[in-house]
Amino acid sequence: MDFTPNLASGSAVLAAQPFSAWIGAELEGFEPGRAVLALNLRPELHQQHGFAHGGVLCYLADNALTFAGGSVLGPAVVTSELKVNYLRPAQGERLVAEATVLSSGRSQAVVRCDIHVLEGGSRKLCAAAQGTITLLTQPAPQA
Amino acid sequence: MDFTPNLASGSAVLAAQPFSAWIGAELEGFEPGRAVLALNLRPELHQQHGFAHGGVLCYLADNALTFAGGSVLGPAVVTSELKVNYLRPAQGERLVAEATVLSSGRSQAVVRCDIHVLEGGSRKLCAAAQGTITLLTQPAPQA
Amino acid sequence: MDFTPNLASGSAVLAAQPFSAWIGAELEGFEPGRAVLALNLRPELHQQHGFAHGGVLCYLADNALTFAGGSVLGPAVVTSELKVNYLRPAQGERLVAEATVLSSGRSQAVVRCDIHVLEGGSRKLCAAAQGTITLLTQPAPQA
Amino acid sequence: MDFTPNLASGSAVLAAQPFSAWIGAELEGFEPGRAVLALNLRPELHQQHGFAHGGVLCYLADNALTFAGGSVLGPAVVTSELKVNYLRPAQGERLVAEATVLSSGRSQAVVRCDIHVLEGGSRKLCAAAQGTITLLTQPAPQA
Repeated sequence: MDFTPNLASGSAVLAAQPFSAWIGAELEGFEPGRAVLALNLRPELHQQHGFAHGGVLCYLADNALTFAGGSVLGPAVVTSELKVNYLRPAQGERLVAEATVLSSGRSQAVVRCDIHVLEGGSRKLCAAAQGTITLLTQPAPQA
Repeated sequence: MDFTPNLASGSAVLAAQPFSAWIGAELEGFEPGRAVLALNLRPELHQQHGFAHGGVLCYLADNALTFAGGSVLGPAVVTSELKVNYLRPAQGERLVAEATVLSSGRSQAVVRCDIHVLEGGSRKLCAAAQGTITLLTQPAPQA
Repeated sequence: MDFTPNLASGSAVLAAQPFSAWIGAELEGFEPGRAVLALNLRPELHQQHGFAHGGVLCYLADNALTFAGGSVLGPAVVTSELKVNYLRPAQGERLVAEATVLSSGRSQAVVRCDIHVLEGGSRKLCAAAQGTITLLTQPAPQA
Repeated sequence: MDFTPNLASGSAVLAAQPFSAWIGAELEGFEPGRAVLALNLRPELHQQHGFAHGGVLCYLADNALTFAGGSVLGPAVVTSELKVNYLRPAQGERLVAEATVLSSGRSQAVVRCDIHVLEGGSRKLCAAAQGTITLLTQPAPQA
């Protein structure tokens, strides 16, 4: 595998995901063992009380975990499973998810992710996730 | 609480969530202890290989769990945490998430959710989730 | 692999686990896609309020998930991850964990598990788990 | 609540748990927002390949999470749910679980836990957990 994890290579993968493009995700950091994914909160991403919808946080956790796993396993990876704890309502201008690899082997990585919400000058932890990223084997899993 | 869980009351809550409206979620079932939430897969909801993005599945799990919890606890609920296992790539026309309450008390419910993908005449299990729904207390949690 | 999942083959694996022998686990069912593991609650297995310790429930979930995964993948498996929701205090005479395979491929299975507590004539759901079982590859993972 | 989290108060709670006493758990650290729980690995705690049984790791995660939650919420707490990823076989002399509170409110705390195995002079991360600790309300939940 000749994949080098950096902002250019990672942003190209992100740009190829239509859902990430729509939701407005941006890669802020991508290096071996770590990925930072962010997005600006706009009204379409809210639930009925004006906070970020849990599904938006979950998307961000899922994708940050996948990128962090991909930074050590290569780009042909999928998230096998994840767990998210929501810690406080996510109200603010921007969400930033930072994912860090805890452990990796030949075919799997276990990754943690913290999501902060930025509002005014403050930065508050609003969700914490943990999951498993798995290398895709050939042939690709049947759909 | 004078909230009756049925398609009319649940669809009104869903319509008030901008993110759910954008993503195109529809409530197919909503009764005490059970919620069914579905959406049509369109290109904006894909990742780079033409499957539903994991974040879409995660949104659907999160929201179906919340609705099922709300069907027994009332509408003022949040998802505290959830876990999702992705079982196969979600390729097809429509996703259907069915959530069922396992246990509920005065302030919390534990709920499971299965997500199937419909393609042609087939219906395949593509994700399985489990989570905790918590009644909001007054005053609302600080943002 | 010439492993046939049945009570004899499964009980032999269980008997080879010193921790399972000490804790008193018994295999009640073991067939393709399903395992039932039980134990009698005795004072050594309690926490400070006379209920089964959460760690006992967690052991039972972990091992029932592993056996169910092993029933479809063969005996050389490990639990990669699991999630447990505790639903009520486990007070009674016996715990019974029933694990069922949701999905399995060549190298992994995703499994759910329900744990009931038996007390007098009643049988109550006290914990619900979900996890991933992975086939060990050769050579064995480094310790 | 006049509970002060320190080694004396925490060790008294641990000593009152018959399962913890049998398994040989020792509290190494207990202060606001943090708990360290350890045990020596002996043959009774193994699975069939000579590693610590997953159930032992799960017990340790569960109880370290509970103590950390109790350090901020007081002693009347239960673990509502937890998730554990096993990272490598736990082979060695001693397991050390360190749990740290990520977030806490009036009635719940979300906690992470890392478990290391000590072997010779080495110390390796072998499991990572995350869970929710909940304050018990009066009256106690029905059994």
